[in-house]
Amino acid sequence: MGNPFEVVFDHLTIYGPGLLGASLAMAVRRRWPGTRLRFWARREEALEQCRRSPWCDEIATDPVEAACGADLAILCVPVAQIVELGQRIQDFPGFAGILSDVGSTKGTICANIPARGAGGSFFIGSHPMAGGEQSGMTAAREDLFQNRTCVICPQPNGDGKALQSLGNFWGCLGMRVVELDAMVHDHEIAKVSHLPHLVASALAATLWQQPHRETLCRLSGPGLRDAIRIAGGAPDLWEGIVMENRAAIGEALQPMLQQLQELAGALESGATDKLQTILEEGFKFQRLLSDIQSNPG
Amino acid sequence: MGNPFEVVFDHLTIYGPGLLGASLAMAVRRRWPGTRLRFWARREEALEQCRRSPWCDEIATDPVEAACGADLAILCVPVAQIVELGQRIQDFPGFAGILSDVGSTKGTICANIPARGAGGSFFIGSHPMAGGEQSGMTAAREDLFQNRTCVICPQPNGDGKALQSLGNFWGCLGMRVVELDAMVHDHEIAKVSHLPHLVASALAATLWQQPHRETLCRLSGPGLRDAIRIAGGAPDLWEGIVMENRAAIGEALQPMLQQLQELAGALESGATDKLQTILEEGFKFQRLLSDIQSNPG
Repeated sequence: MGNPFEVVFDHLTIYGPGLLGASLAMAVRRRWPGTRLRFWARREEALEQCRRSPWCDEIATDPVEAACGADLAILCVPVAQIVELGQRIQDFPGFAGILSDVGSTKGTICANIPARGAGGSFFIGSHPMAGGEQSGMTAAREDLFQNRTCVICPQPNGDGKALQSLGNFWGCLGMRVVELDAMVHDHEIAKVSHLPHLVASALAATLWQQPHRETLCRLSGPGLRDAIRIAGGAPDLWEGIVMENRAAIGEALQPMLQQLQELAGALESGATDKLQTILEEGFKFQRLLSDIQSNPG
Repeated sequence: MGNPFEVVFDHLTIYGPGLLGASLAMAVRRRWPGTRLRFWARREEALEQCRRSPWCDEIATDPVEAACGADLAILCVPVAQIVELGQRIQDFPGFAGILSDVGSTKGTICANIPARGAGGSFFIGSHPMAGGEQSGMTAAREDLFQNRTCVICPQPNGDGKALQSLGNFWGCLGMRVVELDAMVHDHEIAKVSHLPHLVASALAATLWQQPHRETLCRLSGPGLRDAIRIAGGAPDLWEGIVMENRAAIGEALQPMLQQLQELAGALESGATDKLQTILEEGFKFQRLLSDIQSNPG
């Protein structure tokens, strides 16, 4: 691709070979075939699966030793495990590279993992917005990150060069890189990702509770299918994500609740103005989103 | 296809050349090239467009005369216009065929258009569940009905043979035909179509009202895109659909509102059990729907 700013990382350690971790390894292997890929996983069987995979050069059973000599280490574990792992790695004098993560919340993570580590390393939070309702190594694919957005979070006491290198890394994997403060990230993502997920889950849960749920499924079409697709995300992963960002999600939920309450009132009274406003504003946002996503500029 | 029960209609009149009406004409032309297709539209320009289209043999400016001699007439106009048109056609002694419609609500329509008409005709309501967020003649396509579900509503004083012929008609166009009482239809469709539409609209309207809506769009991915896709349906059409079925939608909305209120409480207090239940039930319904839709049996 001939990017003059391209930084090649020689030793990459990936923590957690799930959908994101394994897809990342595939994408890196394709882009930089010479990069050495080391994996750490909590479970023995997962490590064993890594060892047999073409996108893994070596495995490590100790999370701290896994970072030894790496110039880039990325935490692809569930959000609830990121802070503890990150702190241990930043305390390790044998690691002088860049540490990042793929957690979908950033406030707590960036506030609790030191920006500068004992060995001269730098932590910078990332949120590559890829994935979806599938999970696990078997769903991994090398183009998962292609044409998606990745947020990286500069820290007040961070290092500009490390930030640039990390942004360059995601950019070379085909992502559009956006820099955002960690707290701002959490509030914006609450609105565009966490709230939609919970709304889809609540809608799907409401239908699950209906007596004739199979009949409902048989009467449904692609509209309902797409509207609740994200509710198919792994419940345990999402519980962690939501609890981590619950304050911002709670704030984002309030105006949505109010819309639905006003709508309920309008349906009861037969007043059409509130219904019209919701349908029209919803229509305008759908068109805006569709335009911007199809031409991200 | 060799269906031994296939009934061929020689003269079909379609009212309203929008997405459904024009797609229906294309599908009929393909399946039964010998069927004569007549169109009625309220607007001059729409009629003129029909006249120039390969799927239209003749046009009619008077809605009653448009039914003259037809053995099947289908009302593809917005729901608010169906009853009035249907009553006028059923009053017309020159029409002895089957009258149906494609309205997405059925209770009011089936209660107000006489099942038996002055000329010996029969009215039977249909709801072919096809369409989506696009509308208008230009979005029409001949495979719109393929592999979709069509509800037809038997009436207490209806005719069994006419019901069978109409079901056969939709079936030959590739639809799975389901018979449902009109009121039952409205309650079930409120849950699987109207409620999801309003939820998607309310979510999208909430995001529209945010100060930095363009930034939100840039941070969003395919999850949000799919979750709000149906909010792109034409607001004026949906206002009519929702008002027509507002009692059933209001009932369906209550448990959804309750889920979100309980969720708001859980986010505030940090209690995880309600969140878990919603995520897990939502997950189970998404999987059930996905299984049933991919293998409708």
